[in-house]
Amino acid sequence: MSEAAIIVIGNEILSGRTLDRNSNFIAKRCFEIGIKVSTIIVIADIKKEIQKAVIKLAKLYDHVFITGGIGPTHDDVTTEAIASAFKRKLILNKKAKELLEKYYDKRNIELNESRMKMAYLPSNSKLIYNPISAAPGFKIKNVWVMAGVPSIMQEMFTSFIEPQIKKGKKIYTRNIDIFEPEGDIAKKLELLQKKFSKAELGSYPFIRGETVGTNIVIKSRQKVLVNKIYFKIKLMFQ
Amino acid sequence: MSEAAIIVIGNEILSGRTLDRNSNFIAKRCFEIGIKVSTIIVIADIKKEIQKAVIKLAKLYDHVFITGGIGPTHDDVTTEAIASAFKRKLILNKKAKELLEKYYDKRNIELNESRMKMAYLPSNSKLIYNPISAAPGFKIKNVWVMAGVPSIMQEMFTSFIEPQIKKGKKIYTRNIDIFEPEGDIAKKLELLQKKFSKAELGSYPFIRGETVGTNIVIKSRQKVLVNKIYFKIKLMFQ
Repeated sequence: MSEAAIIVIGNEILSGRTLDRNSNFIAKRCFEIGIKVSTIIVIADIKKEIQKAVIKLAKLYDHVFITGGIGPTHDDVTTEAIASAFKRKLILNKKAKELLEKYYDKRNIELNESRMKMAYLPSNSKLIYNPISAAPGFKIKNVWVMAGVPSIMQEMFTSFIEPQIKKGKKIYTRNIDIFEPEGDIAKKLELLQKKFSKAELGSYPFIRGETVGTNIVIKSRQKVLVNKIYFKIKLMFQ
Repeated sequence: MSEAAIIVIGNEILSGRTLDRNSNFIAKRCFEIGIKVSTIIVIADIKKEIQKAVIKLAKLYDHVFITGGIGPTHDDVTTEAIASAFKRKLILNKKAKELLEKYYDKRNIELNESRMKMAYLPSNSKLIYNPISAAPGFKIKNVWVMAGVPSIMQEMFTSFIEPQIKKGKKIYTRNIDIFEPEGDIAKKLELLQKKFSKAELGSYPFIRGETVGTNIVIKSRQKVLVNKIYFKIKLMFQ
């Protein structure tokens, strides 16, 4: 099964200014297409940190998805960091330049030096298109680099990345609310997990006003097994 | 300056089922009290993974804040993982047992074997109290372990952790919306960053309906400097 890591880059996440929703979006999509996200890390806009993380995770996982830090300002250091991680030079990508020219020309905006920076990509990388603001992301080896703005990132992921990656076998999932506290059902749940080792049972306590309960999530590659456990749990607790 | 790492534990985050808000809460609070969060990682409910992450991050940072996986069910493996990371045994903590007994007695709920599991903590760890469901978190060396349920985690952090940790020097911050796209102001912003190296300038593009703009965040330990740059930017762009 394909395994993936997500790297979210940005000081704004680490200072709490911004709630990261990008990793949740990617994680959900990966789950849908049968790719297992094994870790998510958030790091600062610091070249060395990014470099270190990319080198390590690109070796460990089939895919590394990166968001943030590919814009035109001084704090956008992701592209440079990734180029140096793979010992590649930043070179002017003609297709990227063309896209930017067309985009800014149409809007009567100057394609100045800062914006041109976005057309310099690691050598031998492939563009990830961005219909919203034209600035492209890129792919290098098993690393996919996307913008940090959620609308742009989502477009890049669903329109350009998903069609290009090999989907895994779908993981089926059902979940069920039990209106008993976790501690009351723990033993039975554990036995169930031991009995059905081809499924994964997750248990998530909730408090909704006065109501205390547990949401049980059943996951498996075998649809029949998910349904079987689902009805077993229904019988046991409801 | 104190530096911290946050470890979020849970399959539900990695599958996209749950949007992690805990790390954002901790990051915000840390920023407020002058502690720098340098990294956030999300990992699965797998003992070995947790162990590895804790050993590594506890060495690198002043504080490690952990959320998730300390409940009574089979997928709660955090406590065990951390005990083995520090080569400690899990022993019955009398105070934890007492708190659980009192809590369940009052509610006429059985303190069964699954629930008693929560009273077994690594030897020589200190309790982090939890007024909501009584099950305690714990501190071992520089590692603070909290529940994953947001309301409980927040209570543990603000009521019991914050009063115990040494606050850093406050970081002052102001932000300002510029109604120009990032690419137009990048050069000027870069010069400003170079001129004022004791401050950190972050630049975050936004799209709000038809409006394109940039939110600039100014951060520094020097309040006067933050204000100075704020008014400089106001004059330059507004």
